Amino acid sequence: MKARVRRIFSHLEDGVDLIVFANSTDPHLDLSFLYATGLTDGLFEGCAAFCHPDGGVDIVTSVLEVETAKKSGLPLHPFRTRDEREQAFRKLLRGHRKIGINFAEITRKAAEELRSFAPKAKFFDATQAVVRARLVKDETELARLRKAGRIASRAFEDILPIIRAGRRESEIAADLVYAMQRRGSSGPSFRTIVGSGPNSAEPHYTAGPRKIQKGDFIVIDFGARYEHYCSDVTRTVVVGKASEKQRAIYETVRRAQAQSMKKMRPGVRAKAVDTVARTIIDGTEFKGRFIHGLGHSIGLAVHDGGSMNQSSDIVLRKDMVFTNEPGIYVPGFGGVRIEDDVHITASGPKLLSMAPRQLLEL
Amino acid sequence: MKARVRRIFSHLEDGVDLIVFANSTDPHLDLSFLYATGLTDGLFEGCAAFCHPDGGVDIVTSVLEVETAKKSGLPLHPFRTRDEREQAFRKLLRGHRKIGINFAEITRKAAEELRSFAPKAKFFDATQAVVRARLVKDETELARLRKAGRIASRAFEDILPIIRAGRRESEIAADLVYAMQRRGSSGPSFRTIVGSGPNSAEPHYTAGPRKIQKGDFIVIDFGARYEHYCSDVTRTVVVGKASEKQRAIYETVRRAQAQSMKKMRPGVRAKAVDTVARTIIDGTEFKGRFIHGLGHSIGLAVHDGGSMNQSSDIVLRKDMVFTNEPGIYVPGFGGVRIEDDVHITASGPKLLSMAPRQLLEL
Repeated sequence: MKARVRRIFSHLEDGVDLIVFANSTDPHLDLSFLYATGLTDGLFEGCAAFCHPDGGVDIVTSVLEVETAKKSGLPLHPFRTRDEREQAFRKLLRGHRKIGINFAEITRKAAEELRSFAPKAKFFDATQAVVRARLVKDETELARLRKAGRIASRAFEDILPIIRAGRRESEIAADLVYAMQRRGSSGPSFRTIVGSGPNSAEPHYTAGPRKIQKGDFIVIDFGARYEHYCSDVTRTVVVGKASEKQRAIYETVRRAQAQSMKKMRPGVRAKAVDTVARTIIDGTEFKGRFIHGLGHSIGLAVHDGGSMNQSSDIVLRKDMVFTNEPGIYVPGFGGVRIEDDVHITASGPKLLSMAPRQLLEL
Repeated sequence: MKARVRRIFSHLEDGVDLIVFANSTDPHLDLSFLYATGLTDGLFEGCAAFCHPDGGVDIVTSVLEVETAKKSGLPLHPFRTRDEREQAFRKLLRGHRKIGINFAEITRKAAEELRSFAPKAKFFDATQAVVRARLVKDETELARLRKAGRIASRAFEDILPIIRAGRRESEIAADLVYAMQRRGSSGPSFRTIVGSGPNSAEPHYTAGPRKIQKGDFIVIDFGARYEHYCSDVTRTVVVGKASEKQRAIYETVRRAQAQSMKKMRPGVRAKAVDTVARTIIDGTEFKGRFIHGLGHSIGLAVHDGGSMNQSSDIVLRKDMVFTNEPGIYVPGFGGVRIEDDVHITASGPKLLSMAPRQLLEL
């Protein structure tokens, strides 16, 4: 993991001594702790990674997680009590003057605690350097993202036979999560969305007791977590025969995705990719119905720090991974979203998710 | 939710104008946002609850979640863009001088942003008042916790038939999560632990590819989330016939739990409850093998702010809910933990989880 830590430092000005990723209580954990240590298991509440400019990392860990922490191969500083924890933190902070912390993922309280342990040091916000480093994935990360994408895609195909009129949205969500877990996921990467009929028009709906009816659009937005890395995929299907209007909506979204996807190459501005999809949708009768950004970077978090929308200033680079997820939402009628995870390579976009992308009439 | 907000203010000194619960990106969400608004669905990234001393709450929400936010019945301030969001925040902060924020659940970055929107206000840490309010559950919260406990307990009984030699830990975890979701859970409240054989001796192990063998202890630690509230239950079973040593360990843990449980009454110090269990275990050949605290409060978070261990200064009160989870861990041999969720009432402890507590030989 030395290269990862060095990459973070390379985005900082000179003179930074140390970067600390400090976890609080679940869910307030700094995902960069996992990034810097490479750990793929464990919770590590109250633990921290102390990262040095040469790429070295010291881990302060509870004795309860020492066995898991050993898998990192990094030097460990185990604590049993609150006092021992404080001593370990103080020892590793000692002598450092300019210390970066990840303002976007550390709690206000944990930041305060660090400051109290090293009152003479200057703490500053290293968020941008962390985001920039994490945006570009290394081979280990790409392998995990591929696996997370494959698990989600196959699980979707596993459950196609059970999507039919009369089934509840929540049952389909449960079956999908189960299918992903049976295929090796440690759990869903976020709460599965199964929005049927009018619910499909609400982009952030989750899944409720509604029973699926013939003719419904069903938006299914789901992802697998594999060794902490996430996938995020959406498919929209119709139960029964699609109407002409449904077909028109679906084909518009599909075209917006296919055309914008081609733009996902190194050197292209993320905003320009969003513009391609938006222009296509806004050139139809569904103008103004694409009410969110086209995509986001994905990695240890589902929303991993980078946006691909009209206010994004990111330029796409080799080995970034972004979702591409245009949608059209017609209140009261229904909606369509098609979402894939895209690895940006020198030779163009490579899809990490591969479930069928044509309109399925089930 | 007025009563909840007023309860938080009652734990603060006079002169506090406003409390703000501000969400960042998932998983960095302030669970008190859900507490103050009563919302049971939605993600609300980048959104915030502005709480007033009279119990009133204003919600700043993305337009993407307006439909969900409406279910709160509270005044909404929807935003479409980053600028509109900033305007809504500034408007609601205006004129306030002394503003509480939840340092334990807000990111350093979100705290900084609030300060930049209201440079003349004094922001202070309201964490203790929030924890104290959330420790004592109201009837709505208790109903959700009961349901979360019932779902987990029944799901455990659902999957008993599949726990047998040759099955992988990860398969059992997947089946348990699925059973909880089929019984109405929105998802697991944390990553399910299925630790078999030597893995049962690691309290924070999760679940891996190991196949269960005859004679194994299997520690299964799991919980359901229901309308955002968590359960957290552990059962330990043996596949096949238990050995004498296994029986001795199990009975010691069971006795430690049963005896300490009786102490869980209003007015008793949490530390004293831990002492009962610890004294029982340390009075046997397994002295020193109970290597964690006896329990923790549970609610919107699995570890909801209160500890029941040797360094706890909490006094138990009516309508608090704590886990009681003694354990014995013998490295290389295996471990036992028995964990239940306990509602503290005037007439004594009431169990929210009810799966069988005797040693099951499967």
